[in-house]
Amino acid sequence: MWIFLSLHYMEFTASQISGFIDGEILGNPDATITGVSPIESGQKGFLSFIAQDRFSEYLQSSDCSVLIVSKKLITEESYKSTIIVVEDAYLSFQVLMNLYEKLQSKKTGIEQPSFSHETSDLGENIYLGAFSYISENCKIGDDSQIYPQAYIGKNVKIGKNCIINSGVKIYDYCIIGDNCIIHANSVIGSDGFGFQPTKDGYQKIPQLGNVIIEDDVEIGSNCTIDRGTLGSTIIGKGTKIDNLIQIAHNVKLGQNNVIAAQAGIAGSTTLGDWNMIGGQVGIVGHINIGNKVMVQAQSGIIRDVADKEILYGSPAISAGDFRRNYVHFRNLTQIVKRLSAIEKNNKNNTDV
Amino acid sequence: MWIFLSLHYMEFTASQISGFIDGEILGNPDATITGVSPIESGQKGFLSFIAQDRFSEYLQSSDCSVLIVSKKLITEESYKSTIIVVEDAYLSFQVLMNLYEKLQSKKTGIEQPSFSHETSDLGENIYLGAFSYISENCKIGDDSQIYPQAYIGKNVKIGKNCIINSGVKIYDYCIIGDNCIIHANSVIGSDGFGFQPTKDGYQKIPQLGNVIIEDDVEIGSNCTIDRGTLGSTIIGKGTKIDNLIQIAHNVKLGQNNVIAAQAGIAGSTTLGDWNMIGGQVGIVGHINIGNKVMVQAQSGIIRDVADKEILYGSPAISAGDFRRNYVHFRNLTQIVKRLSAIEKNNKNNTDV
Amino acid sequence: MWIFLSLHYMEFTASQISGFIDGEILGNPDATITGVSPIESGQKGFLSFIAQDRFSEYLQSSDCSVLIVSKKLITEESYKSTIIVVEDAYLSFQVLMNLYEKLQSKKTGIEQPSFSHETSDLGENIYLGAFSYISENCKIGDDSQIYPQAYIGKNVKIGKNCIINSGVKIYDYCIIGDNCIIHANSVIGSDGFGFQPTKDGYQKIPQLGNVIIEDDVEIGSNCTIDRGTLGSTIIGKGTKIDNLIQIAHNVKLGQNNVIAAQAGIAGSTTLGDWNMIGGQVGIVGHINIGNKVMVQAQSGIIRDVADKEILYGSPAISAGDFRRNYVHFRNLTQIVKRLSAIEKNNKNNTDV
Repeated sequence: MWIFLSLHYMEFTASQISGFIDGEILGNPDATITGVSPIESGQKGFLSFIAQDRFSEYLQSSDCSVLIVSKKLITEESYKSTIIVVEDAYLSFQVLMNLYEKLQSKKTGIEQPSFSHETSDLGENIYLGAFSYISENCKIGDDSQIYPQAYIGKNVKIGKNCIINSGVKIYDYCIIGDNCIIHANSVIGSDGFGFQPTKDGYQKIPQLGNVIIEDDVEIGSNCTIDRGTLGSTIIGKGTKIDNLIQIAHNVKLGQNNVIAAQAGIAGSTTLGDWNMIGGQVGIVGHINIGNKVMVQAQSGIIRDVADKEILYGSPAISAGDFRRNYVHFRNLTQIVKRLSAIEKNNKNNTDV
Repeated sequence: MWIFLSLHYMEFTASQISGFIDGEILGNPDATITGVSPIESGQKGFLSFIAQDRFSEYLQSSDCSVLIVSKKLITEESYKSTIIVVEDAYLSFQVLMNLYEKLQSKKTGIEQPSFSHETSDLGENIYLGAFSYISENCKIGDDSQIYPQAYIGKNVKIGKNCIINSGVKIYDYCIIGDNCIIHANSVIGSDGFGFQPTKDGYQKIPQLGNVIIEDDVEIGSNCTIDRGTLGSTIIGKGTKIDNLIQIAHNVKLGQNNVIAAQAGIAGSTTLGDWNMIGGQVGIVGHINIGNKVMVQAQSGIIRDVADKEILYGSPAISAGDFRRNYVHFRNLTQIVKRLSAIEKNNKNNTDV
Repeated sequence: MWIFLSLHYMEFTASQISGFIDGEILGNPDATITGVSPIESGQKGFLSFIAQDRFSEYLQSSDCSVLIVSKKLITEESYKSTIIVVEDAYLSFQVLMNLYEKLQSKKTGIEQPSFSHETSDLGENIYLGAFSYISENCKIGDDSQIYPQAYIGKNVKIGKNCIINSGVKIYDYCIIGDNCIIHANSVIGSDGFGFQPTKDGYQKIPQLGNVIIEDDVEIGSNCTIDRGTLGSTIIGKGTKIDNLIQIAHNVKLGQNNVIAAQAGIAGSTTLGDWNMIGGQVGIVGHINIGNKVMVQAQSGIIRDVADKEILYGSPAISAGDFRRNYVHFRNLTQIVKRLSAIEKNNKNNTDV
């Protein structure tokens, strides 16, 4: 069974929790919890929340010691659990979880053995895990954490308050902004896929650019973001990238894009801001995608896309058109039968 | 040319091998082999096997010193190679390969430098490779092997007899059962992809759950299995996962599922038991898939799926329907010509 | 802004550069550059090139100190920048970039702590990064570089002049040729996905083969190439593989294939030479693909393919046919309306 992180090393009362989120208590304010659970699997000693009608049955039946509940769902004067009444239980729960995360002690200090070149400039209050490697002329900003077995190439700059997880590899000359998170085993700045065909084989085109990741970017696990051939591959401020995603050389992503797992973007394509790209989507190289575009999962984009288009299919067309046409695709056997019936009928008429 | 693993440091006679698999020898029982090869590239000193009619020509021509052959394929009293006759050569060969693997000396002991926090509990007879990292409060079961450069977060529990290959990263609080194998550079328990849109950008939703991997699970290389937001992402007993696969937060997989390379399952989706998911398949979030379902490669599943359905296409429909309709898709140009011919004909008739 | 690699620690004059590429100078031969930039973002102190008509406007406007320009584009006697005139500015620029890369000092020597088993044979002039791991009986060729946190299993052979980037994992008995580059966190030789179903679950089929990578191969980041079950998975000479690619057990790739990101090839399939496989393509197991085949991105190949076929779609058909049929798919709603109109019309005629 799932147990909420290290909360079992802490203990909170309903009244303490209520204080964090400006709630009102129904029931025993001294009820204590040592963990948090999904509402479906609540137990004594645990906290959960109810924000939606469809979960309100749990108001009566949950074994949780404390529940945070949206005001509109309250119909009784008291319940089995201690209730903390708030305007929006979902938001209040988020606030609580964020608080909790900030309470977690953050790792700092330099573990040994680690490798840090003497020419590199390490900020205040950083964490450098064992077996991590910092090459020459790097700059690591204050409060950043470099986990064990991460590799930082030469002349890399990492901003403040970043988390570079275990096994992340950052090639030479890449630049990471402030407040970025890169998850385990992602690779930033490996060579773009550029080769010149000759009759004897493919000759490598040197990949001499870098990757620039702006502030507030989060990148999932096992992603690959290639360096520019010349110039930079750019991931704009606030963009969030899921796992196993490929960003090719010289791609430029604007701000606040969201890209789901296993999508891939080919070389030199640009995206504006606030786009949402579904899982396993493929986008060809050398095209321009506007702003606030939505692309359904598994679609393939092979042309420029205007602002706010919603696309689906491979190759992708307007999502509405795709869905309508796909209904007919599912009936093609029937459609062809209808066509054959007409032909037969016409033939009979002619024969007559 | 390929040489069979470290067999070249061992030597077996036909009679020894026959003893392992209850075979009957035709030819010289003292013929020795030092390696194993595919039947197509057999050489003196090597062992191979013939289990199917279509390979029986090699019975005459193979240069292998020893061949394991299914009884039904034997037509002569002797052959160029020494023959070990068994009921089912394929199964006997598997038995032999399994025996061989067990003969391989298993690594044990703690290599230095490695990092193991003093609060962690290491079982008997384990292997801890150089540059591996075990955080605080971990428990590693007896006979488990942690290869070089693996990273184990805090409060992680790993069962008995597991193999955690080089570069695997397991985040805090994840739980791995007994007899599990995780291949190189897979990431277990990185943050789920959860963000709340605000007008200024996306705000991270803390990912506070974990991953639970039950007994007898094998996970390929470079996979990513995200931790639950609350609660657990669960990989059920006996499930086998190929390479480069994405399992999102709060997915629950039942027992004995088989998932081929580069497939992805989005958040909170559940699968029952004994499902077979093809390569590059995508499954959307928040749906339920039953048992014994088969999904063809590259399909996209966007709805609940009942037991034993066989699906194909993106979005996926019944595989039979998809194949029938796709035949018509391939003829669409022809179909549209037929339609136009009718229209023209009708128009002519009307004009007349 | 992007800055050209460590060029800012070097300085070149127009006349020096012109000497490397047999150019002719218009303007000041002593103009100096300390970096290289894309033509669109040129600045004082930087070098760029103009090889195509569509960029010739920059001849007048660029702030670059030095420009390499194709002869055919020169119309004036002098320009704002110093010009180096050559036959083909693109080729000359490539020559320069290759020269530049060779000028870069190559890492050599053995950093500590690293682990290298005493039975392994390390060539001359190699680099072994900190926290790298070389198992027993390996052979590393002269001038090869093994970056930090790479793992080399036992009995692995790596040729001359290879670059094994940080975090690469190579399992036991694999063989790498000369002049190969493997990018960060790729996994070579993990177990193929082979299991035998039994009523109690799947039983692992031992994966006892290896991977052979021939000379001049480049493999991107986070790829997975599985070992053969028996025999070898083979990547032929000169083949180039992008990022996040899956090559299953016993696949055999010929020479000079190019495979784009996130493609996957299932077990025992063979490819000839000079094929071009698009991104996110899936190829099923146990088929044969000829030579000079082109497969469009996201296609799925499920049958043998003859030389020089061009394929598209999932499942893939001739690319021309796919495109033509897809146009009709996009019009299916219209097509069905036409069909219904005919039916209605025929019915009316009959009713009459």
